[in-house]
This record gives sequence, structure tokens and C-alpha cells, in this order.
Amino acid sequence: MTGTIDVPPGLRNVVVTNTELGDVRGSEGFYHYRQYSAIELARSKTLEEVWFLLLEGRLPEPAETARLRDELAPLRELPAELAALLPAIATTGERFDALAGLRTALSMFGMARGVPPMLDTDEARRKANTLAICAVTPTILAALYRLRRGLAPLRPRPDLSAAANWLYLVTGTEPAPAQVRAIEQYLIATIDHGFNASTFTARVVASTGSDPVSAVSAAIGAFAGPLHGGAPDRALASLDEIGTADRIRPWVRARVAAGDRIMGFGHAVYRTEDPRSALLREIALTLGGELAEFATAVERGVVEALAELKPGRELYANVEFYAGVVMSQCGLPREMFTPTFATSRVIGWCANVLEQARDGKIIRPAARYTGPAPTVEHAPS
Amino acid sequence: MTGTIDVPPGLRNVVVTNTELGDVRGSEGFYHYRQYSAIELARSKTLEEVWFLLLEGRLPEPAETARLRDELAPLRELPAELAALLPAIATTGERFDALAGLRTALSMFGMARGVPPMLDTDEARRKANTLAICAVTPTILAALYRLRRGLAPLRPRPDLSAAANWLYLVTGTEPAPAQVRAIEQYLIATIDHGFNASTFTARVVASTGSDPVSAVSAAIGAFAGPLHGGAPDRALASLDEIGTADRIRPWVRARVAAGDRIMGFGHAVYRTEDPRSALLREIALTLGGELAEFATAVERGVVEALAELKPGRELYANVEFYAGVVMSQCGLPREMFTPTFATSRVIGWCANVLEQARDGKIIRPAARYTGPAPTVEHAPS
Repeated sequence: MTGTIDVPPGLRNVVVTNTELGDVRGSEGFYHYRQYSAIELARSKTLEEVWFLLLEGRLPEPAETARLRDELAPLRELPAELAALLPAIATTGERFDALAGLRTALSMFGMARGVPPMLDTDEARRKANTLAICAVTPTILAALYRLRRGLAPLRPRPDLSAAANWLYLVTGTEPAPAQVRAIEQYLIATIDHGFNASTFTARVVASTGSDPVSAVSAAIGAFAGPLHGGAPDRALASLDEIGTADRIRPWVRARVAAGDRIMGFGHAVYRTEDPRSALLREIALTLGGELAEFATAVERGVVEALAELKPGRELYANVEFYAGVVMSQCGLPREMFTPTFATSRVIGWCANVLEQARDGKIIRPAARYTGPAPTVEHAPS
Repeated sequence: MTGTIDVPPGLRNVVVTNTELGDVRGSEGFYHYRQYSAIELARSKTLEEVWFLLLEGRLPEPAETARLRDELAPLRELPAELAALLPAIATTGERFDALAGLRTALSMFGMARGVPPMLDTDEARRKANTLAICAVTPTILAALYRLRRGLAPLRPRPDLSAAANWLYLVTGTEPAPAQVRAIEQYLIATIDHGFNASTFTARVVASTGSDPVSAVSAAIGAFAGPLHGGAPDRALASLDEIGTADRIRPWVRARVAAGDRIMGFGHAVYRTEDPRSALLREIALTLGGELAEFATAVERGVVEALAELKPGRELYANVEFYAGVVMSQCGLPREMFTPTFATSRVIGWCANVLEQARDGKIIRPAARYTGPAPTVEHAPS
């Protein structure tokens, strides 16, 4: 094959495109959205303010935040065609799979709303469609969860912030301000994080000029992959398994000896502590309780053991580790941990989809054929 | 950003991975599946034989083809959970959108069948799941089409080949052997074609260890993009617009002067005649009739005019141009042209998904941040 370009497997470190949305600096333990430290944004801003920032490239005035909230509130409602199908979607399958349900329901949502290809629409229409996708995603996920448990879905609350509305829709009770703020900080910190596989999937689909629902449903399929990361329930399951502080070191040694990965530790990009993990540890300790205390003991034990057993590997807690602790503290059930992540990441996917649509160039790489040489005559007929 | 690798926009000519499935040699006007010229395969084999070749890496013995047909026949049936939802899916949306319907229905199919992540399954189970996806896809598409027109969906016919069954399911009449063979040749020739955006999308999703339904639904979203290609109805619409032979040259001149693309001409990879176009022209002329004659006159006129107006651009008819003619000759309605393409390409996506799953490495590229420099303190907290 002539004229082709070889790159490392998995496109690692290969720059696919330019972006103005943000950057992850793995060796500095730093990431930002539109020039603002994402962790600082999580500390000081609301989700809606950061959402505006991602879309518009600047922080909003208070009136602009209010306008965005007003625009989003009615978009939380399910279209009737979709509401009618949700009970069937929620109860299909032997086990509850919120992401597969979301993939199906959002695909149906796109049909009900009539979301056109981005190539055929202007920026304003595209943006409105992505707001609709992001606003309806939490409603869908919470409805699927409740329907699967035989409960009636709740109507979204236009008076609540995105974070408070999410906790309300899942738990059915009005959440305490400390819990709302904890979840809001988690959501802000996880909106976007470089060109992970789901974000990249969304951009490849968007590069064909397709519609944002296609791009987001595709991203959900990648997000569901076990190698993708983003399953805080797995880290929490490890805490259960360890059980007591004296079992931390033997547990880590056994896992490492067996060649098993330790869930909640290590990251594709960070060679430092994951800055999201540091934020979430602080939030967990502020909310307080036994689980948070135990988690910090496990973190210390695992990091020490890994440094000793796998020297030079720089394995630290990642975003998953404390996310599950914080979500537990906020009353979210485990099967809704990854869906909670999806409610913020969908905002990042959409910001990426809009940016990719402005680029206008299809992403179409090459592969190297490594099978047997063609054996038959191959002149064009 | 240090340690990153710059490549051409859109990953053009960037080798993402190795493949044993096939190769497209754009400068030779040649492509093959597993070392066999795809055009020769279309001339001499059945779809099921080529399907076996893609999956197993060798052509089947007759008994193996029979076994594959026996395995596929029951997989054409819709699961009850999906059949119950199809009328709602088919009638949602202001216009009929078969690909959005397929995206939704396949996503639901994955839930009903309980298709697990590929990382958690062995090769045999993965393969069985991809056979199920490919076998049910034509049933879904034909049912959506008929339901949208107020007709009852037809039961798939286990006694018919994949090609004959497709024509039967859409048209409701048993097709003539010449039509079955024409469509079968089209289907064989379009199973796979390099790392186009939909195939690449499927592989990115598969690289996360996710399930094949997620990968295929994602690919459908990319396939639906206007920049992707694969919409034979657009080329046929051009033939309508031209109307008569004397209007060919003025029509081409007007389009080129307006800077419009001419549908059915030009390809991202071929710098020669598209070998699929040559095959389909031959098939169209064999089936005969006015439309085929007119299409060849338009092809000649457009190629000549483009050579004169855009010298050096090497613009020839692509796979779309005669595909619409052949599909018309076989009695397929225009809104089912692209869906017909989808029924063969899904086999290619699945072969790629299985190959990617064996690779086991996540595809996770990078982007270059080009916005304003971060302005805030960014030491890890």
C-alpha cells in the first residue's frame, strides 16, 4: 500500500483534529474546558453555567443562565410517542441495562422529534437539537429505572436545577442541598475529558454530516464498552469485597498476583493523580460517613501496594473510585451510577458533535491488508 | 502538547489497524475480500458463500453453505418484543426514515436477545450474535416499509436465499430469478469496502469491548450521514431531472457552474472507474430497458463533461450511479434503495466488528487544543 501513514496502535497520541473545547494534560494532572480548570469550575459554578461555557465559549451572565434554564425545562418532557414505548423498552431483557435502554429510547426520540442531518441544518437548529437530547436523557434514564422496578416515572421538575432534578427523578424525593451540590460537582467534572472512545465515536458519526441523535446513540454504544471506563459501581463493588481495613493489602496482593486489573485505579492519560479523584475524595469526606472513611483507607492501601508491586507504573485512583462513594452518599442506586455519568457526558458529546459539524470533513482512515495476496486476475472489467 | 503525532485531516491514508478482510486499491480500480476479487465473487458466488468467506477466511464447501443457510433461516424471524414495537417505530416521524427505524429497532433487538459485550464472550457467541443481527436486519427494514404504508409485514421465507427473501419481503411477490441474481450480485459487491466512516465507527465501538448491536447501530448512524455515500436514490433523481438525452450536457454544465456535486460520480478512494459501477452497468444492460439505456448515455455525457470541465480530477461513475437503476429494474421502491445497501453492508460491519474484537485494543486518539491558553491556577488540588 503506497502513500499511507503508520501510527501507533489504537491511534494513541495521534491528533485527529483541533478542538477549542478543552484539553487533558496527563502529565500535569490537569484538564480544562475552554481555558477554565474543570475542577475550579466544579468548585465555583453551576452545571448550567458550565454547559453554557461549553457551547458558547465564555461564561454566561446571570440572565443568560436563566434563559438557558428556561429553554431546558420544557425539553425535559418526554414526547408522547416515546413515553408510550418506554414501559416496553424498560422491561425488555433479562437484566436491566440502562445504557441499552437509553440507546434505544434516544434513537426513538430522534424519530419523534424529527432531528435532521447536521449537514442540512444551521448552527442554531443543531444546537437546539443537542439541548433537547441532553435535557431528555436524564428523564429517559430515570423513567427506565423506575419502570423496571414497577414504579411510575416522575414528571421532570422545571423548578429544579439539572442536578436536583436528576436526584429527584431517580429517588422520588426532594434531595438535600448538600447532595445536590455534590452531584452537581461530579456532573460538571465529568462533562468532557479529551478524545476518549465515546467522544471520538460521536465525532466520527458527526463527521459524515449525520444527525446528533445518531452521533449520541453511537457514543452510548462505545461508552457501554467494558474497556471504556466510567463504571463507578465496579469500584464500589471492590470496596464491598474488601470489607475491612485489615484485608486491603492481602486483597490487592491477590489481585495483582492473579494479573487482575484493580477497578478505580489507573488511567489512559493521567500519569499523576486523576484531578477528578482528588475533587471527589474531598466531596466524599465533606459529606462524611463510614463509606468515605473506608474508601480513603482503601485508596491509600491500594496506591501504596501498587507502587511497591508495580514500581514505575504510576497507578492512582481514577474518577471511578470516589464517584461511586459520592453517588451512594447522595442516595443513588448502583445501577444508576453509570447512567448518572451519562447525563453529564452527553453534554460533552454534544459540544464535540457541534464542533465536528463545523469542521465539515469526513473522518475516513485506512487499514493495512495483511492477509494472503490476491490470487485472481484483477484488471478492471 | 508533547509526544503527539500529526496526521492529515480526516485521518486520510492513516493506517488505523491491520485487517485480513480485504483491501481497496484505489489507483488500480480493484478491491477484494479475503484475497478474492469482490467483483469475481459477485459474478460467480452466492451471497451466503461470500458471507461464509468473510467470516471464515475461506470459501465454503457446499455442505457448509447449506449449514449457514439453515442457521440463518430461523434468525430472520423478529423476536416478539420487537415485533410488538415495530408498528410504532415505523409510523413515528413526519417522513419515513428507514435507517433511523433500523437504528431504533436493532437497538431494541439487542435488548430482547440479550447480546452481551464482546469482551465478555467467546468468538463463537460473538459470531452467532452477528449472524442474528445480519439475518434480522432485512426483516426489520421490510417490515418498517410495509407498516409505514399500512401493509402487514410479511413473514421471512426460509426456503428463499437472502437476496430472494429480501425482494419478497419488500415487494410481496416472488421475484424472478434474473432479478434475484441481479440484486444478489449488487449485495455481494457492497458487503465491504475499506475503512469508510461507518465501518470505522463500528470498529471504534467494538474496540471498547462493547456488544455488536451497539457497534452496528452506531455504524448505521454514520451510514446515514449525507457525506458518507451510499444513496442510490440520489443518482436516480438526477436521471429524472435530466429527463432526455439532449439535456445531459447543459445539465452537467449548469451543475458544475453552480459548484454542485454530481450525485453518483467521484469517490474518496478510486482514481479509476469504480469497479462496482462497471459490474452494475453490465447487470443493468443485461436486465435491459429504457432506464438502463438512458443511464449509460448520462454516464458517458457526465464523464466527458467532467473531464473537460474539471480536467485531472478523474471523476467517474461510482457505486451509487447504476445501483439505483438495477434496484429499479428489480422492483424495489426508491425509499428502499439505501436500506438495500444496508442489508449487505451490515455483513461487512459485522466481519469488521469480529476482527476488531480479536484485536482487544481500544481506539482512543488525541486532539490538539487550539483555544485560548488556560488562565487559572492549575496545580492539582
